[in-house]
Amino acid sequence: MAQSALRIGVAGLGTVGSALVRILDKKAAALAERCGRAMTVTGVSARDRSRDRDCDLSKVTWFDTPAALAASDDIDVFVELIGGEGDPAYSAVKQALEAGKHVVTANKALLARHGVELAQMAEERGLILNFEAAVAGGIPIIKTMREALTSNDVFRVYGILNGTCNYILTRMEDEGLSYDACLAQAQALGYAEADPTFDVEGYDTAHKLSILTSLAFGSVISADDIYVEGISNITAEDIEAARDMGYRIKLLGVAQKTASGIEQRVHPTMVPVRAPIAQIAGVTNAVAIEADIVGRLVLSGPGAGGDATASAVSGDLCDIAKSRPGHQIAPALGKPAALLAPYKRAAMRAHAGGYFIRLTVHDQTGVFASIASRMAEQGISLASIVQRRKNGAAENADGPQTIILITHETTEQAIRDALEKIEQDGHLAAPSQMIRLEH
Amino acid sequence: MAQSALRIGVAGLGTVGSALVRILDKKAAALAERCGRAMTVTGVSARDRSRDRDCDLSKVTWFDTPAALAASDDIDVFVELIGGEGDPAYSAVKQALEAGKHVVTANKALLARHGVELAQMAEERGLILNFEAAVAGGIPIIKTMREALTSNDVFRVYGILNGTCNYILTRMEDEGLSYDACLAQAQALGYAEADPTFDVEGYDTAHKLSILTSLAFGSVISADDIYVEGISNITAEDIEAARDMGYRIKLLGVAQKTASGIEQRVHPTMVPVRAPIAQIAGVTNAVAIEADIVGRLVLSGPGAGGDATASAVSGDLCDIAKSRPGHQIAPALGKPAALLAPYKRAAMRAHAGGYFIRLTVHDQTGVFASIASRMAEQGISLASIVQRRKNGAAENADGPQTIILITHETTEQAIRDALEKIEQDGHLAAPSQMIRLEH
Repeated sequence: MAQSALRIGVAGLGTVGSALVRILDKKAAALAERCGRAMTVTGVSARDRSRDRDCDLSKVTWFDTPAALAASDDIDVFVELIGGEGDPAYSAVKQALEAGKHVVTANKALLARHGVELAQMAEERGLILNFEAAVAGGIPIIKTMREALTSNDVFRVYGILNGTCNYILTRMEDEGLSYDACLAQAQALGYAEADPTFDVEGYDTAHKLSILTSLAFGSVISADDIYVEGISNITAEDIEAARDMGYRIKLLGVAQKTASGIEQRVHPTMVPVRAPIAQIAGVTNAVAIEADIVGRLVLSGPGAGGDATASAVSGDLCDIAKSRPGHQIAPALGKPAALLAPYKRAAMRAHAGGYFIRLTVHDQTGVFASIASRMAEQGISLASIVQRRKNGAAENADGPQTIILITHETTEQAIRDALEKIEQDGHLAAPSQMIRLEH
Repeated sequence: MAQSALRIGVAGLGTVGSALVRILDKKAAALAERCGRAMTVTGVSARDRSRDRDCDLSKVTWFDTPAALAASDDIDVFVELIGGEGDPAYSAVKQALEAGKHVVTANKALLARHGVELAQMAEERGLILNFEAAVAGGIPIIKTMREALTSNDVFRVYGILNGTCNYILTRMEDEGLSYDACLAQAQALGYAEADPTFDVEGYDTAHKLSILTSLAFGSVISADDIYVEGISNITAEDIEAARDMGYRIKLLGVAQKTASGIEQRVHPTMVPVRAPIAQIAGVTNAVAIEADIVGRLVLSGPGAGGDATASAVSGDLCDIAKSRPGHQIAPALGKPAALLAPYKRAAMRAHAGGYFIRLTVHDQTGVFASIASRMAEQGISLASIVQRRKNGAAENADGPQTIILITHETTEQAIRDALEKIEQDGHLAAPSQMIRLEH
C-alpha cells in the first residue's frame, strides 16, 4: 500500500541545509525504495531568499519565519538547522511539536539547554525528536547510545567532539608550531571561525558532551554542570614533552560515574600514544563508550562539514519515513523524559586521575627538593620526573629550567594545593602548567 | 497503557545464550523502563538440560527442539543462538517466521547462506529479523549500515572481522614469534578453537563480509563469490618486513564497487601503520565504511565473547520491545528483499592495487636484473625495493637472499603472471610470498 510522501520543512539553508536539500532531491528514487516511502522538501525558511545555494528550490514554498514553517499544514517533519539555544530555533521547534510535527535538529546548543523539555513534549504527543547531527556530525553516536546500547549501563563516555581543536593540536604536534600559528592555519582553511572562542575554549565540546551524558546515565541534561578548560594555553613545549613521555594531547569531553556523582569535564588531556583516541588526527571526531556488557566501543568519523552533517540529518529523516503513525515512539533521550534521574554533580576537586605538571623554575640549589616535598605533603606520588633546560638554551646556560612531573593517581584538590604552595615558595619563573591524564 | 511483556524464546544456551538470559533477568526493571515494555524469557531449548549455566532457568519452559520452541504460542520472539548454516537453525528460524514470531539471530553462516530468503519471509509477514550480533560482535555495524547510513551510497566497506586472526597477527608483531607459536597461545587462551581452520583460513570473515556487502550495495548476499585467503602462511619475516616499510599485516574482509562488478575478498593485507585499521590490536574487531555523503566512518570494539555478543542480541530485542504490532517493519537488508540487485562478481584477476612481494633467491649474479625485467614486462612499476640477507645470516654469508618489492598499483593478473615467470626462471630458493596492500 503506497503511502503519501513524507513532507519535510527545512528551516535554515546554510551549508548543511542546502546539502540536505541536494541529497533528498538527487537520491529521491533510492530513498523511496529503501524507506518504503517517498520524501520531499515542501517548505523552507531562511534569511536570504536570493542567495545561490546550488540546490533546486523552485518547487518549495518559502516561509517568512521558522515558526510559520513549523506550524504549516504542508509539512510532516520540521528540520531545524538554524542553530543557537534561543529563538528563533527554540520557539520554532516547540511550535512544530505543538502542531504535531516530528522534529529533526542538528542544534546542540538548543538540546543542551532545552533538550529534556523538548523530549517530553515530543513523547507526550507521540512524535519523534531526532538529533543525530547534534553530536559528532556524521558519526552515528546518538543511535548507538540510544538504541544499540539500550541494555548496557555506561560507566564512561569520552571523545574528541570538536574538529577545530583537534586540527590545531594535530598540527602543533606534526609541525612543532605554536598554538597561534596553527589557529591561524585553521582559520585560513575554514576550520576555525574568525572568533574561535566557542570552539577553542571548549564550549562547543561541552554542549555535545551534555547530550551524551544524559544518554549514558539516564539523567537530565545539565550543560551548566561541566568543568570546561580550552586549548588556548597549550604550548609547543607541552606537545613536545607529551610526545617524549609517550602521550598525545587531545581536547576531550569526558563524562563518568563516580562514587560522589557524575563528572562532566572538558579539558586538554594527555592520552597514551597507543590509545585508540590518540590516533584521531585532524578534523576527525571520535567517541569511546565504556559499558558493562559490551566493554569498549570506539566510533570515529567526520564531526562537521555540510555533507557529513546532512548525512546524519537525512538518516534521522529516513528513520521517520520508515515509521508509521500510531506506533510507539522510542523516547528521545533513551528513557521517558519524566523518568530521567536528577543530575548529581561530582565536585571537580574530587576528580581522581594522573596529572602532567610542567614547571619553569629558577636555576637554584634545592628547588627540586622543595617541589618534591610539596608534592609529598599532599600525598602525591610521582610516576616520572624529567628535568631539562628550556627549549633552545645551551646545555650549561644559566636561566630557567623546566621540570616535568607525571603523577600517579591523585586528586584535583591535592594537585591544586601542591601547586599553590609551590607558587608561594617563589621558585617559579613562569606560571605552572597542569594537564590531566586519561587512560 | 501498559502492554503485556514481550515473551522471548532462546534456542541455544552456550556462552552467549546464558549471558543473554542473565542480562535480561538482572536488568529487567531498567529494560522495562527504557523500552516501555517488559521482556521475559519464557522458553528455551538446548541439548543439555542439566549443565550449570549460572543463570536462572527455573521459570522457563524447556522445549525438546528449537523448532518446537519456534512454533510455540508462548513466545513473541525467537532468538536463534544455535549456529551453523543448516538445520536445526535454518528450519527453526523458518518455523518461527511462519508462526508469526520476530527473529533475532547471531548466526552469520545461516545469513550468509539463507539471509535473503529469511529477510523476504520476515517482510512478507510484517516481522522483524534482527542480526546485529552476526557481524563484529558488540559493534553496532548492522544498525549503522541499515539505518544510520540509509541515505548514503557506500563505495567500500572493510574490516577486521575475526578476533582470532587479529590476536595471532598482533602477537606475531609484538613478540616477533612464529605463526604456530601465536596460534598455540591463542588456543591456550580460548581465542582459537582446537581446529582453527574456520577462523585462520578466513571463512568466518567471509561469512560476515557477505552480509556487510549486501547492506553496503543493496545486492543479494553471495557468500560463494568471495576470494578467500587465510593467515596461516604469514611468517615472522613478513611481519618484520612490513614493519620496516611502515605497514602492519591484518586479515581484512574487503567489499568494494569496481567498474566490472563487486569485489569481495578476504586476505592478509598490508595497511599503513598510521591507518585507523592498523591500530586495532588483539581480539578487537573494526569496520570502516566509505560512503558518498558521510565520508569514512570507523567503528571498533569487541568482536566476540559471550557478553559482547549478548549485548548486540539484547539491543536487537530492545528494538523489538520498542516496536508495536501493525507498524511498518524496515526491511532486514536495508531495502525490500525483492528489490535487492543481483550479485555481479568482479574477477579477482582484475583487482587493482599495490602488492608486497617477498622473494627468497639464490645468491647469483643477474638475479635481481632478471626479476626486475619480469616485472617490467608486465608493466608493473616498483615503489620500493629492499634486498637483504636471510634473517640471522652473517652479512657476507653465502646462501639465499631476500628481495622485497612493493609495487605501485597494478593488477592481480599482472602480478600472478610475473611471479609465474620468475618461478620458471629458476632463481627462487623458496616459494614466493605475495600480500596485497590496502589504503
